[in-house]
Amino acid sequence: MLRKINLLDAVNGCELYEYREIGRINGQMLNVVKVADRTLDFHVHEFSDEAFYVIEGDFDLEFENGAVPLKAGDLIIVPKGTRHRPVCKSLVKILLLDMSGALNNENSGGTYSK
Amino acid sequence: MLRKINLLDAVNGCELYEYREIGRINGQMLNVVKVADRTLDFHVHEFSDEAFYVIEGDFDLEFENGAVPLKAGDLIIVPKGTRHRPVCKSLVKILLLDMSGALNNENSGGTYSK
Repeated sequence: MLRKINLLDAVNGCELYEYREIGRINGQMLNVVKVADRTLDFHVHEFSDEAFYVIEGDFDLEFENGAVPLKAGDLIIVPKGTRHRPVCKSLVKILLLDMSGALNNENSGGTYSK
Repeated sequence: MLRKINLLDAVNGCELYEYREIGRINGQMLNVVKVADRTLDFHVHEFSDEAFYVIEGDFDLEFENGAVPLKAGDLIIVPKGTRHRPVCKSLVKILLLDMSGALNNENSGGTYSK
């Protein structure tokens, strides 16, 4: 039988700043992550669009021409090649969707690690 | 500036049984749909995995070996080639993710249309 995943339960089971893969779909990877008090550097993913879905909390996604505030239930798709950086002040729980292998420590503006 | 989409607002803006595309990511299509009192026929998508995320409400996803009950906040990924059918009794609001062009009226067990 296929397994369902409750997004909030999955992310609540993570440590702060820990990415956890919860599934793959057609070569895309689904990860959940819990973040607070972190701003990444501006960066670009050359080979993958990237979707952010806010499970709980809120954060800003900054682009070269301004910031988009995102709250629980909001989704945004960042096309590949678009400079962006997440600005996470209070605790936020996020689902990420991107091409498997497209993201790594060198192209993600740093990591959320402590 | 990129546009964010609130999933609940997007699906609340749809008619009952209307699929609405809200975005694309790496060749995948994101659709929201609002359904009640509909059971599709068992069917298979040969060329695409398919993800279901429950925005609001609940429904059952049936497989050959049983049913998985899904409620708001739950996600399930159905691998390509897996026979399945949604059983929607009460009102449920769903996000669907699948390869663009993979689904059509001939391979989806009927449609939700009235």
